[in-house]
Amino acid sequence: MNKELVKRVFEANMELPRRGLVIYTWGNVSGVDRERGIVAIKPSGVPYETMKAEDMALVSLETGEQIGGSYRPSSDLATHLALYRAFPSVGGVVHTHSRWATIFSQSGRDLPAFGTTHADHFHGAVPCTRALRPDETGGEPGHYEAETGAVIIETFRERSIDPSEVQAALVRSHGPFTWGASPEKAVENAVVLEELAFMAWHNLALDPGLPPIDQSLLDRHYCRKHGSTAYYGQSRA
Amino acid sequence: MNKELVKRVFEANMELPRRGLVIYTWGNVSGVDRERGIVAIKPSGVPYETMKAEDMALVSLETGEQIGGSYRPSSDLATHLALYRAFPSVGGVVHTHSRWATIFSQSGRDLPAFGTTHADHFHGAVPCTRALRPDETGGEPGHYEAETGAVIIETFRERSIDPSEVQAALVRSHGPFTWGASPEKAVENAVVLEELAFMAWHNLALDPGLPPIDQSLLDRHYCRKHGSTAYYGQSRA
Amino acid sequence: MNKELVKRVFEANMELPRRGLVIYTWGNVSGVDRERGIVAIKPSGVPYETMKAEDMALVSLETGEQIGGSYRPSSDLATHLALYRAFPSVGGVVHTHSRWATIFSQSGRDLPAFGTTHADHFHGAVPCTRALRPDETGGEPGHYEAETGAVIIETFRERSIDPSEVQAALVRSHGPFTWGASPEKAVENAVVLEELAFMAWHNLALDPGLPPIDQSLLDRHYCRKHGSTAYYGQSRA
Amino acid sequence: MNKELVKRVFEANMELPRRGLVIYTWGNVSGVDRERGIVAIKPSGVPYETMKAEDMALVSLETGEQIGGSYRPSSDLATHLALYRAFPSVGGVVHTHSRWATIFSQSGRDLPAFGTTHADHFHGAVPCTRALRPDETGGEPGHYEAETGAVIIETFRERSIDPSEVQAALVRSHGPFTWGASPEKAVENAVVLEELAFMAWHNLALDPGLPPIDQSLLDRHYCRKHGSTAYYGQSRA
Repeated sequence: MNKELVKRVFEANMELPRRGLVIYTWGNVSGVDRERGIVAIKPSGVPYETMKAEDMALVSLETGEQIGGSYRPSSDLATHLALYRAFPSVGGVVHTHSRWATIFSQSGRDLPAFGTTHADHFHGAVPCTRALRPDETGGEPGHYEAETGAVIIETFRERSIDPSEVQAALVRSHGPFTWGASPEKAVENAVVLEELAFMAWHNLALDPGLPPIDQSLLDRHYCRKHGSTAYYGQSRA
Repeated sequence: MNKELVKRVFEANMELPRRGLVIYTWGNVSGVDRERGIVAIKPSGVPYETMKAEDMALVSLETGEQIGGSYRPSSDLATHLALYRAFPSVGGVVHTHSRWATIFSQSGRDLPAFGTTHADHFHGAVPCTRALRPDETGGEPGHYEAETGAVIIETFRERSIDPSEVQAALVRSHGPFTWGASPEKAVENAVVLEELAFMAWHNLALDPGLPPIDQSLLDRHYCRKHGSTAYYGQSRA
Repeated sequence: MNKELVKRVFEANMELPRRGLVIYTWGNVSGVDRERGIVAIKPSGVPYETMKAEDMALVSLETGEQIGGSYRPSSDLATHLALYRAFPSVGGVVHTHSRWATIFSQSGRDLPAFGTTHADHFHGAVPCTRALRPDETGGEPGHYEAETGAVIIETFRERSIDPSEVQAALVRSHGPFTWGASPEKAVENAVVLEELAFMAWHNLALDPGLPPIDQSLLDRHYCRKHGSTAYYGQSRA
Repeated sequence: MNKELVKRVFEANMELPRRGLVIYTWGNVSGVDRERGIVAIKPSGVPYETMKAEDMALVSLETGEQIGGSYRPSSDLATHLALYRAFPSVGGVVHTHSRWATIFSQSGRDLPAFGTTHADHFHGAVPCTRALRPDETGGEPGHYEAETGAVIIETFRERSIDPSEVQAALVRSHGPFTWGASPEKAVENAVVLEELAFMAWHNLALDPGLPPIDQSLLDRHYCRKHGSTAYYGQSRA
């Protein structure tokens, strides 16, 4: 019963090096089966070159305990679990250290929406969290990683950002997390985020005070692809 | 009778990901048969990986109504049609969100002609349009896209730029459109535009006040490759 | 008995062009067998395309004299030997002219630790040495190269950096050297250094005064992967 | 008798797109047989994808008249001939619009020697020419191209740069020309120039006033690889 979930999570993980978002073991994808309360996630420190679908770790969404797989889950597990619990519509989570999104994280900057490419995918700036305090980065294994999830959730709540409209966050001094209705969609968001960060960096370097895209154009492009008024693609054909 | 047009437009579309100008579904190429009044264009939201020639959509150049193909045409169709109707020598149109040209669009900057690489292909700066007004970005499906075409045409008319000498435009906060005598030529212009934008960005970052290439050298290189005085290539051998 | 060492050093060398760190002959990897006092190193000026395992040069760790192989050792041999002699835990050394690390070397700047990607691999900034004096760059073949090693060692001693916690150095006006417990690990450090330099350059270009990562987060990530408190990966599973 | 020259010039041309220095038809390599006074050069406007060795054009070094091949020679022929005639030790010439070297040409900047990577290949800064005057860019086909060669030669003479120690020039508002003892060596210089320009651009962007490498270190590295004191590589083994 877990086979389909495991296979999809494995394939979504393998898409990260193919798309140039990770080298060595620098990233992880998870997926959730909400009905059965099970999360499949990349094993910790296993290289993509030799990883197989059966190496995925299975854990309980509720308790975080490992319930399948022979390898320990990603050390970032607690962050994934925090996001699944706080954002009920999320079906997959991705973490990478992809170059351009990480640069924004390291600079502690939001990723501004400068154009329609951004508007097609995220309904406004992608926020960067505050820095974690020493009490949040210390403690037992898993404590820091849970706090990483908590600071993402705090950021979206305090700034009233809808996590279904902006399916990505930049963790200060760290790197990006993205999510989506499925593991595949979360990976696509990670790829798109990297493209947007690439372009926005170059806009900011040339024009430090560049204002974001007009709200009306942002809304138009976002709504062309999302929600009841969408007319992009074949779904309503 | 449409087979040749469809095949060429399909192949021109497939050149975009091969040349690194698009990921996912972020671009589209069309071609026109002016004698028969038919435009072939990429279907909306269909990924390049699985797209086939027979998936191209056929529409009437005059009315924009779909007259062939089982998928809906690109949501950018109205922009393509506006360009075909305003610029009579155009045989193909390309739209992408290619990184470097999009950066200029997002910054709202013309692409200056800094060297002979530019002069070999475009006879002067590639203009960036003004921002669209809220009344232009709103409305029914197709209205905004038609206004996108209109603002390109307005830009060329107001600035007296000959669209056969500068076969590209940057749409503010959006990205590039290129055109040419054929779909293949329009794609080549999209590739060249990206190279030029790459280089010009780095010139501007290092030397913000860099003046454009001397007019005499611009003219020399443009005329070496275009028009009655051309002596580049084998055509007059 | 040297076969295993030679094979590993050869494979580690071949990883450099595969990872995009060198072109032509611009790099070299060595490995040491401390029990037998033998160093295997890339031959000088031999291109990667045609190089074979048996082309590796073998030299005495103690005297530097060639004891095997039909090609002369890399002209950087004396730098490798200096590092092996000064840093007893080192099993492999890498030198490249990789683009981003070399840019920092040419600018004479330390590579700051701006994020957790850095902290996962190096426990603090990667230092850049002082410039060599004319008396250090002159002299017989090997003198300058030995001084290059000496200035790295001087930098770590004077700044009290533990070479097992920061397994990389930037040589002023030259480029990076990395090391590790094995040739493979030294190569991985060269790859990681390049990623970090890429990101840090873009952080500095956008935010010249950006402070480094908080010490507590630096320590957390470094200790998550290194030492007795590590809980990343499968080693303690 | 011309077969060997033609084959080498063809292969050297094909190396340009393999190394990422040219797209479409944006570059050309030539080689000279000084004993027989024959230059082989890429034909004008022929794409690399379909070009064959027998497509190379053969011209007289003395008169520039075509003496073999069924395609017209590169429109840049007159520049190549000027360099062969002025620099007697040159065996091959390369012209490209490679991105980073062209950026320096467009900015009208010399490429400074910032590190040992540069010193290993060029004994000092690579000069950028002055802009050509309108009378130099006008005239019959071939006049402008001959003036392009002339301005390179003028630059080396006026600045007392030895063309055998700096085998490259940046033509203002245009792009790089490189040369060498053979067509293969000229191509290697084009590849190296691109790497150096990449790194120097990023040094200048971060540190606009960065001084060049110390003269003693420049000399050391240049002489380690060139001339009677060289000890790099296997030639003296």
